[in-house]
Amino acid sequence: MNLRDIGEFGFIKRISQGCLIRPQNIIKAIGDDAAAFIPTPHEVMLVTTDLLVERIHFFRNTTSGFNLGYKALSVNLSDIAAMGGMAREAFISIGVPENCSVDFLEDLYNGMKRLAAEFGLNLLGGDTTRSKTDLIINISVLGSAFEKEILYRNTAQPGDIICSTGFLGDSRAGLHLITNDMESDSNEFKALRDAHIIPKPYLWEGRFLARQGGVHAMIDVSDGLSSDIAHIAEQSNVGIRLYSEKIPVSDHLEKFCARFDFDPVEYALAGGEDYTLLCTISPDKVDHIAANYLKRFRNPLYQIGEITDSGKMELVLWNGQIRSFTTSGWDHFKTE
Amino acid sequence: MNLRDIGEFGFIKRISQGCLIRPQNIIKAIGDDAAAFIPTPHEVMLVTTDLLVERIHFFRNTTSGFNLGYKALSVNLSDIAAMGGMAREAFISIGVPENCSVDFLEDLYNGMKRLAAEFGLNLLGGDTTRSKTDLIINISVLGSAFEKEILYRNTAQPGDIICSTGFLGDSRAGLHLITNDMESDSNEFKALRDAHIIPKPYLWEGRFLARQGGVHAMIDVSDGLSSDIAHIAEQSNVGIRLYSEKIPVSDHLEKFCARFDFDPVEYALAGGEDYTLLCTISPDKVDHIAANYLKRFRNPLYQIGEITDSGKMELVLWNGQIRSFTTSGWDHFKTE
Repeated sequence: MNLRDIGEFGFIKRISQGCLIRPQNIIKAIGDDAAAFIPTPHEVMLVTTDLLVERIHFFRNTTSGFNLGYKALSVNLSDIAAMGGMAREAFISIGVPENCSVDFLEDLYNGMKRLAAEFGLNLLGGDTTRSKTDLIINISVLGSAFEKEILYRNTAQPGDIICSTGFLGDSRAGLHLITNDMESDSNEFKALRDAHIIPKPYLWEGRFLARQGGVHAMIDVSDGLSSDIAHIAEQSNVGIRLYSEKIPVSDHLEKFCARFDFDPVEYALAGGEDYTLLCTISPDKVDHIAANYLKRFRNPLYQIGEITDSGKMELVLWNGQIRSFTTSGWDHFKTE
Repeated sequence: MNLRDIGEFGFIKRISQGCLIRPQNIIKAIGDDAAAFIPTPHEVMLVTTDLLVERIHFFRNTTSGFNLGYKALSVNLSDIAAMGGMAREAFISIGVPENCSVDFLEDLYNGMKRLAAEFGLNLLGGDTTRSKTDLIINISVLGSAFEKEILYRNTAQPGDIICSTGFLGDSRAGLHLITNDMESDSNEFKALRDAHIIPKPYLWEGRFLARQGGVHAMIDVSDGLSSDIAHIAEQSNVGIRLYSEKIPVSDHLEKFCARFDFDPVEYALAGGEDYTLLCTISPDKVDHIAANYLKRFRNPLYQIGEITDSGKMELVLWNGQIRSFTTSGWDHFKTE
């Protein structure tokens, strides 16, 4: 069955169940010219939007609808997390080619609904239309935070300790397994594949960090550690020093790199789509905050380097040598 | 020049000037993980989103970037107008194929900026990415209104007078001229072409109507009069009676129809993309409101029919005969 058989309104009827997770503040959900809701009192509104296009960001034959929906929403939630906010309402536009089944689309919405339910987010509206060739997904997420608690990219201070909320490089290793069709390794390296396919947004962690006095700047790792920390450096007008021995690398990634003769730190630095949070914390507060973080989330807050006033991007190797690094991250258009 | 030459961030730098029209309530514009702004105090937030895909909604060779940008934003603003709200912040995602020039994209943003400046709207963020084949534009617009003033589709009452803020059918006639490549007629019928190419959103009019006591329901004409008034009928559980002699048809459309032997009422009913507002007004208030409307906008508020309790959709012809009509509007997927 495809959309031609049930029509736009028939489709909306099919997927609208389970979209409203937190109906308290909703005035008008799907079905009118616009959705209407009451913003969270006294909080600032945060908005992020991401466009995913088939054959650029995903291939329909290498993903389930569920995983695609889950990840599409997750990367938006990660942007809200990186500001220290909570995600509230999501708006989903899809452009659907003839050869895309309603089953696939329902599965896509189920992936989004699973994540929405987990974080108390409403799927409050969107647009459903045709596309000639590629499946298109645009998601806009509205979130909120107290103005004083919002964390930006341009507010890091020299001396701050740079921290990561999770392992780095797993997602890129997972992508390597998928694109090279290493299905035989899928069980052994399931965690790596999952890191790429269904990344979790660090929403609670971001909110927690935003509420601690002493966290100065934050960003999520979408383009890769080296590239994203460079955004902080550039916008805050500071330097970066990372320690390769401190960069958190999972056992799975170690094993993967040992097997294929890759360098795990290279993977962590130049990877991407980890969706962990990087934050910079005042040196006199960092141990206290890290201890509270561990208590709250039962996961360490990894201290991986520091903000300097040199303006340089430096990596300290195991042997103490200092190497400069550049943003080898992912700019969607630029050629070298 | 295309995006590959200047990169995603180079492009953002190029188009970011002139995006912030109303900076007062903005905490963070383009450049961080999410935009942040202070919602309008005491008002409800309205959100609408529209996805436009090349070869479905537009053809790049029949439009300028400017007009495409103008219209893409305009149809979103029309949805906010139809709720009785004011548009505040817009978020623009574009997916750009290799063969689309930076000039075209800058022109596209100029079209949006022109309209944004006119209505005090900020272009506050978005996403810029590649696309394999088609140019893709997704716009999300956030607006606001006092909760008590918002107008819905499901609140029409039997006895209400149905009104339109403008002429109907012009846009469809303009589309006919464009798709049949009737360039020789372009001067004579410029108004029809413009109605299709650069429709104006009735934002001030919608806001005005929402503030009059006695206006019960509202919708904008995107799919066509018959189709959109049917949304009100269905959602309000009422009937509709329209009078063909009262349906406002422009002199241009009369002339166009006389020339090509079309029926102007047919054009008005089954047209689409007029982006006028249809509202239903309590019969004891309608003359007063229409008089105020005329004074305020120097344009009449056309009274074209009434809400009935019959559940039927009826059209009264010039000779008094009653004909039932159906939604012959535009459902993006359904086949007959």
